[in-house]
Amino acid sequence: MITINPAELGRSQVYKLLTGSIVPRAIAWVSSQSNDGVLNLAPFSYFTAVSANPPMVLFCPGTRAAGNGEKDTYNNVKVSGEFVINFVDAANAEAMNITATVVPPDVDEFERAGLTPVASTVVSVPRVAESPIHFECKLEKIVDVGDSHIVIGEVVYMHFRDGVYKDGNYIDMEAYQPIARLAGSDYAHLSNIFQLQRPPSEI
Amino acid sequence: MITINPAELGRSQVYKLLTGSIVPRAIAWVSSQSNDGVLNLAPFSYFTAVSANPPMVLFCPGTRAAGNGEKDTYNNVKVSGEFVINFVDAANAEAMNITATVVPPDVDEFERAGLTPVASTVVSVPRVAESPIHFECKLEKIVDVGDSHIVIGEVVYMHFRDGVYKDGNYIDMEAYQPIARLAGSDYAHLSNIFQLQRPPSEI
Repeated sequence: MITINPAELGRSQVYKLLTGSIVPRAIAWVSSQSNDGVLNLAPFSYFTAVSANPPMVLFCPGTRAAGNGEKDTYNNVKVSGEFVINFVDAANAEAMNITATVVPPDVDEFERAGLTPVASTVVSVPRVAESPIHFECKLEKIVDVGDSHIVIGEVVYMHFRDGVYKDGNYIDMEAYQPIARLAGSDYAHLSNIFQLQRPPSEI
Repeated sequence: MITINPAELGRSQVYKLLTGSIVPRAIAWVSSQSNDGVLNLAPFSYFTAVSANPPMVLFCPGTRAAGNGEKDTYNNVKVSGEFVINFVDAANAEAMNITATVVPPDVDEFERAGLTPVASTVVSVPRVAESPIHFECKLEKIVDVGDSHIVIGEVVYMHFRDGVYKDGNYIDMEAYQPIARLAGSDYAHLSNIFQLQRPPSEI
């Protein structure tokens, strides 16, 4: 084995090891809105569910790698307390990548990526019409950790493209076609889905 | 689109929608140790990196679905302040699944799954010798959210199987062979890795 003390590495090397080891990652394509009404859209792969009752999710917008402050998504959510997680399928990959560009805060990233904003049911932030699943979220709490933030939100409304929520029972991966984030410029499709039946509880 | 207010669903239905939408997920195979020295090992897919400087990760051990209290991992980490994240490759899938069984807290899950504990460098909790990557972690903080907990740890030491940390520069997916967690009993392999070059910053 190769053994490494991360304290002896630079930030970018540690980042490479974290993003290369913690794979694959789902992508939260987060829409938010500034006080001035400018729409923001950006992908975050430090993203997971937390709780089912009530439904809570989190994503972690780090400070900008270039060291020039906070991301627009973080600033918007902190002020408005609302955001939408749009999910990324294979057909959205290129548009999602366009929204990964660092642009000035007054740029409408829906417009820039050729995406269609559609009104949400509960929150004032619009959803991405082209995305197969949307979670409308209200900010629960922000926890500052290291050079990043944990943004925790309650999912207050969910939207699924027809066919993705199959028989009112489960999410159909064939209809959904999610993509996986890896490290560097790498993404992946899923293949060879297999089953492991969890053994029954022994207590 | 199908529109759902999750407050109108039961917990298990919400859980299905969260785990089916937020895919694919990496797996933290967490080793921990009780005050009495009993080794515990369990997989968690509510797992992500948070920060690179210092390196911080988090995982979320929910309360048990059956409603019978906290998981052993949570109890151990809360008391000892230490844990190891072992990463799961294709060869470890079956052993990982064995450790997903709910068993009494006095059961050594390394022994039960036929795995080899190997001493860590900094923390007192052993690693899984059969795993390709280990992150030794010290507890930073626990944040309670909904029916779950966010366990945040600082990565204080990293170990990589020879060949996985390629040329001292990046994690090689061919050598690593990570598996992805989906919903229900489903897992997946990665395929068709593709690249999206992130456009340069415009500010």
